[in-house]
Amino acid sequence: MRRELFTADHEAFRRLVRDFIDKQIAPNYAAWEKDGRMPRETFAEMGELGILGFALPEEYGGAGLRDYRYNVVLQEEAARAMVTLGTVRTQLDVILPYFLEYADQKQRERWFPGMVRGELLTAVAMTEPGTGSDLAGMRTSAVRDGDHYILNGAKTFITGGLLADLVIVVARTSSDPDNRRAGLTLLVVEDGMPGFTRGRMLDKMGCKVQDTMELSFQDVRVPAENRLGEEGAAFGYLGHNLPQERMTVAVGSVAQARAAIAATIEYTRERKAFGTPVSSFQNTKFELAAMSAEVEAAQTMIDRAVADLVDGVLSGADAARTKLFCTEVQARVVDRCLQLFGGYGYMMEYPIARLYTDARVARIYAGTSEVMKMIIARDLGVS
Amino acid sequence: MRRELFTADHEAFRRLVRDFIDKQIAPNYAAWEKDGRMPRETFAEMGELGILGFALPEEYGGAGLRDYRYNVVLQEEAARAMVTLGTVRTQLDVILPYFLEYADQKQRERWFPGMVRGELLTAVAMTEPGTGSDLAGMRTSAVRDGDHYILNGAKTFITGGLLADLVIVVARTSSDPDNRRAGLTLLVVEDGMPGFTRGRMLDKMGCKVQDTMELSFQDVRVPAENRLGEEGAAFGYLGHNLPQERMTVAVGSVAQARAAIAATIEYTRERKAFGTPVSSFQNTKFELAAMSAEVEAAQTMIDRAVADLVDGVLSGADAARTKLFCTEVQARVVDRCLQLFGGYGYMMEYPIARLYTDARVARIYAGTSEVMKMIIARDLGVS
Amino acid sequence: MRRELFTADHEAFRRLVRDFIDKQIAPNYAAWEKDGRMPRETFAEMGELGILGFALPEEYGGAGLRDYRYNVVLQEEAARAMVTLGTVRTQLDVILPYFLEYADQKQRERWFPGMVRGELLTAVAMTEPGTGSDLAGMRTSAVRDGDHYILNGAKTFITGGLLADLVIVVARTSSDPDNRRAGLTLLVVEDGMPGFTRGRMLDKMGCKVQDTMELSFQDVRVPAENRLGEEGAAFGYLGHNLPQERMTVAVGSVAQARAAIAATIEYTRERKAFGTPVSSFQNTKFELAAMSAEVEAAQTMIDRAVADLVDGVLSGADAARTKLFCTEVQARVVDRCLQLFGGYGYMMEYPIARLYTDARVARIYAGTSEVMKMIIARDLGVS
Amino acid sequence: MRRELFTADHEAFRRLVRDFIDKQIAPNYAAWEKDGRMPRETFAEMGELGILGFALPEEYGGAGLRDYRYNVVLQEEAARAMVTLGTVRTQLDVILPYFLEYADQKQRERWFPGMVRGELLTAVAMTEPGTGSDLAGMRTSAVRDGDHYILNGAKTFITGGLLADLVIVVARTSSDPDNRRAGLTLLVVEDGMPGFTRGRMLDKMGCKVQDTMELSFQDVRVPAENRLGEEGAAFGYLGHNLPQERMTVAVGSVAQARAAIAATIEYTRERKAFGTPVSSFQNTKFELAAMSAEVEAAQTMIDRAVADLVDGVLSGADAARTKLFCTEVQARVVDRCLQLFGGYGYMMEYPIARLYTDARVARIYAGTSEVMKMIIARDLGVS
Repeated sequence: MRRELFTADHEAFRRLVRDFIDKQIAPNYAAWEKDGRMPRETFAEMGELGILGFALPEEYGGAGLRDYRYNVVLQEEAARAMVTLGTVRTQLDVILPYFLEYADQKQRERWFPGMVRGELLTAVAMTEPGTGSDLAGMRTSAVRDGDHYILNGAKTFITGGLLADLVIVVARTSSDPDNRRAGLTLLVVEDGMPGFTRGRMLDKMGCKVQDTMELSFQDVRVPAENRLGEEGAAFGYLGHNLPQERMTVAVGSVAQARAAIAATIEYTRERKAFGTPVSSFQNTKFELAAMSAEVEAAQTMIDRAVADLVDGVLSGADAARTKLFCTEVQARVVDRCLQLFGGYGYMMEYPIARLYTDARVARIYAGTSEVMKMIIARDLGVS
Repeated sequence: MRRELFTADHEAFRRLVRDFIDKQIAPNYAAWEKDGRMPRETFAEMGELGILGFALPEEYGGAGLRDYRYNVVLQEEAARAMVTLGTVRTQLDVILPYFLEYADQKQRERWFPGMVRGELLTAVAMTEPGTGSDLAGMRTSAVRDGDHYILNGAKTFITGGLLADLVIVVARTSSDPDNRRAGLTLLVVEDGMPGFTRGRMLDKMGCKVQDTMELSFQDVRVPAENRLGEEGAAFGYLGHNLPQERMTVAVGSVAQARAAIAATIEYTRERKAFGTPVSSFQNTKFELAAMSAEVEAAQTMIDRAVADLVDGVLSGADAARTKLFCTEVQARVVDRCLQLFGGYGYMMEYPIARLYTDARVARIYAGTSEVMKMIIARDLGVS
Repeated sequence: MRRELFTADHEAFRRLVRDFIDKQIAPNYAAWEKDGRMPRETFAEMGELGILGFALPEEYGGAGLRDYRYNVVLQEEAARAMVTLGTVRTQLDVILPYFLEYADQKQRERWFPGMVRGELLTAVAMTEPGTGSDLAGMRTSAVRDGDHYILNGAKTFITGGLLADLVIVVARTSSDPDNRRAGLTLLVVEDGMPGFTRGRMLDKMGCKVQDTMELSFQDVRVPAENRLGEEGAAFGYLGHNLPQERMTVAVGSVAQARAAIAATIEYTRERKAFGTPVSSFQNTKFELAAMSAEVEAAQTMIDRAVADLVDGVLSGADAARTKLFCTEVQARVVDRCLQLFGGYGYMMEYPIARLYTDARVARIYAGTSEVMKMIIARDLGVS
Repeated sequence: MRRELFTADHEAFRRLVRDFIDKQIAPNYAAWEKDGRMPRETFAEMGELGILGFALPEEYGGAGLRDYRYNVVLQEEAARAMVTLGTVRTQLDVILPYFLEYADQKQRERWFPGMVRGELLTAVAMTEPGTGSDLAGMRTSAVRDGDHYILNGAKTFITGGLLADLVIVVARTSSDPDNRRAGLTLLVVEDGMPGFTRGRMLDKMGCKVQDTMELSFQDVRVPAENRLGEEGAAFGYLGHNLPQERMTVAVGSVAQARAAIAATIEYTRERKAFGTPVSSFQNTKFELAAMSAEVEAAQTMIDRAVADLVDGVLSGADAARTKLFCTEVQARVVDRCLQLFGGYGYMMEYPIARLYTDARVARIYAGTSEVMKMIIARDLGVS
């Protein structure tokens, strides 16, 4: 069906991105999967092309385009090429908004130019071992000491922790037994600060180009000027950014489901079984048709939700609906597609296997499907 | 999420329709279900309010609004009140387009005023016992005899056949073994024509207000001036109207799924089990949340498809995707909702039971889910 | 796969039952569906053949065969013929066990001969408006007054209430706020007792031959000699019989799912679409194959559970697992089968439509799927 | 429910196996996964304990127990410990039957003692690049040359190819255009034969301890005395062994699904979310309960099918039903279990992640679900 989301500017950006992915990412992707990361040079190259800074203000070298549709284009093009952008997606979709919203003038000057150029890589550290989606239950603490905070605690499941030059850490600066949501603060920890150590890289089922780390903070002295936003206000900040964070997963899910179908159509047309192309079996046709209908539904939902997000009217519940539905569509689609590859679908050299193992996390991170249902139920007035 | 489909005019029409349904349809609906039909007077009342003629030209008493969004409003309002409009929907969504597209000047003058006023009720007779969705396999024949056609054959599953004053019959006027699609013609058979008899009313699982009949034609002399469009061109006409016919089912499916959820939220809030409201169980919340996400996806898909239909750019394959997906969502939703009603869900006095039995036909009529998959697969290039 | 459940005696009974069903039930079934009941004469005929009394002791005219496998044979043969035994199943599977376990010598003499002959029909009245599966929440009360109980209350969803000569009513004879399960007693109310009235017959979606009623009791004087078992012990009695009650639903579900598949194979072999038998489409084959595998799994589970029940070792949790799984298989199977009938599947004259509407209650009565899950979860140690 | 499959002898074997797995396999399993194989020493240890030879005749050091229930015990115990036996399962369940059925006296003497001791490892090479499940389409050829066959061709997806000392290769010795099934012969290729080369180890999604290889044969001179069975009879041999080969997958699927549930119960009891154990959420309980019911159904089906297999009466269609159903249950169960682990479920250090990636192949190998459906459909008479 018609998509009305994009303008000519987005399509121009799409061409630039597509070209870069085809030339610089796709050929190297398998190697990066083994390394568990994208190399620093690639970030720099993306910076040079303007891919990392489009949302940042022009005075720092960016393009001043705070328009989530550019982020959508990035994910669509990556999926089309059967790759992901690894931690770039997290940086642009999840982390940049915190800097853009809450960085003060000095922080902007210190950090934005490096972000634009791909020299300053970032991560955000929320989850702690044992807390899961329960942000209010965080225990990492930051105690004010003059013009510093003394930070102590451990974080886990930190995307991009390996290379991050700046890590936004959510820490508890005060505690109020009557209001567990109060007292959380964002502090920017810099690479090299004493007491900040990176743990091991977690061995994930998929998403291999996107490192996931444990980080620990032992008496790290973080200057107060590295505080992002107001002290004690982080819970609200996190909540404010959640709809976009969830959308980012959903957008990827739909783009990858689409890519899976395209790859499966191509494969089943070429592959023969019992002497005829697999695509000529009615089961193949019906499977692909059923998936195509689901993905089309998911696409219309995404496009609607993105338009609402861009206009600032997407509710948390609708973002949750979109994430819940689109990630489930993706799960069903990649599983059915893989099946049509037969034994080859189980071989990691076939991108469908990667799409399958990558996909499993989508129903989990940025809030599990169960958390999405809690949010939606509350919106429906059943709770 | 935001819906951008309707203008103020549609909303005004919605208020008028809602008022009529609440006052004239909902209170009588149970009785009509027993009768198996809506009474003629109700058609006349709808005619008077302009509900039947909005799409017909002003010179015949209509409003000249060939805008499918008014049809959508009708279905949404019926579903909201947990009723259907019975054969009115078929008349407006499926049959009127044939008259509007293919009736000549004289036919317009003869028939349009009666249609506007709800005095001329209509049906379309395509399916034959044994042919199902295979239009090209029709055997009802019409042989030219001077300025008449002699019509012979039998039709089944004819919605609205009971009260129809005009029945558009698809008949074979010539046969070409090399082109089974050629040679089909539309003839308008009028109530009372000798040889035209109505068989028994079929006992359906649901959709009780919408009669379904067998019709038979034995040497019916149909004047050539009752031919709609060109001789031999019917296959193309039927195909041209199919996307809207399928959309009409999909629109109803989504509207009814929405209504089912609303009724279930209300019921589970009031009903107690083990001393607490059913709505307070996590299973209830998660079921409703999952359904809400699916229905929201279906709604965005419908709205996109309707906009495309109104602009004349909805492909047959996208109409098929929309029907396939939306009717499956409806099936899942009404089943899960009914379950939350427990034993009461199995009692026909609870509207959810009616929604359940009504829903089962949606995956079948206007082309089964299997036919939709064939269409989509062809569009994907796997066939 | 092999079934090792039945002996030659069961198979002899099977032949007798099959013959009776083919001659006396199948030809009249459609008429009984309209009446909402099986006529009294048919009960008498079944009594004469020994179908109603096989489990009752020989001294009262029965065969002394308390062996649930005979009940299984009855359901399998009914399903094979696409009928049900209406309230006979409830009488034999659900109600007889109460009489057999708890009736004293005098009660046996008064009631068993009539039960064997099909002259005394029975019902059990547990559910109350508003309590659902929460037996402990019952409010119907029986107050001792000399050698009578004064019974007051209302019951709903009573299978067989219409013709029942004897109704086992669960009533509260005392209340203990600390033990809601204590104080429930079984009283046998007889047809004609003053104050015992039958309400309306509930209009169910399916199961039309099995009437479902509301019953009310206003100051009904029930002689103490009509008490079944000990005063205050009913909760335990009900619990003791629940596994068999649940098995009876599961057994019917599997038998009917099997029948649906058989009917669909036959139909799709005969029915043509696009000029070839529907059975020759790969989709048809794959649908039937998938269903066949599920039903075979359900059959092995049923046979295992029945053998355990007969040996007295079936746990409540395993009965719950069996009911949950088998009723879900039935639901999926009848839905998929119906789909393969196309438009005819929606017509009540096709038995598949009846199987579909009959099936919907299986996930609800004798404990909903949700209640089954609670029971199983407790057994798994998660609660 | 009760299981009646095993005798005291099987349970004694179970204790032996359990002990071995706990001590020798579980502690080393993670390391073997990295290596992509189990070390040769471990085979020898298993040989010493009698685990590899129980089915081989006593005169060669075996126990003469051709009883598939011992194979079942092995898989159940491996799954209980969250490991697999890698290629041991293939050797015992899939390959040994060929040797036992078709080896002549001399072959038995040459090979059986080494197999019993775990010194001769084996593989079977059927699949070729491009043929999938279509055995009749094989192109590897063996041309008789005196008392040798000259073998040429390529095989893929060969389990255990890495360490195999003996590879049963299916080759075409003659071709008959009217009977594609004729002319296939089994030849035992030995490690070191000139022209026999092993290709790369395929990088699979899971099943990491079980190597999968490409093998190639270029003018390999295989002595005629290495022919297993009659020339041209292999198609029948392969077909004869297929039911057991499929059962072996199904048995593993059910055992692993059971293990997944057990692990998830344990995890959700310990893990807290929002301050309460995850197991206390109704969603967790209902998920586990639903899975438990499915797995119990699968278990009864497996036990029935194994008993039929042991008695030599399991049909190919029933083996197909069992594989189809049990592997789908496994797929659903491991997915739902993993979800209950949240983010940890995506980490390979949690066995649930391994169960998930291991499971994906079960619906594919030993005949895909689609092939199972073809077989079942043929048995139902729809084809």
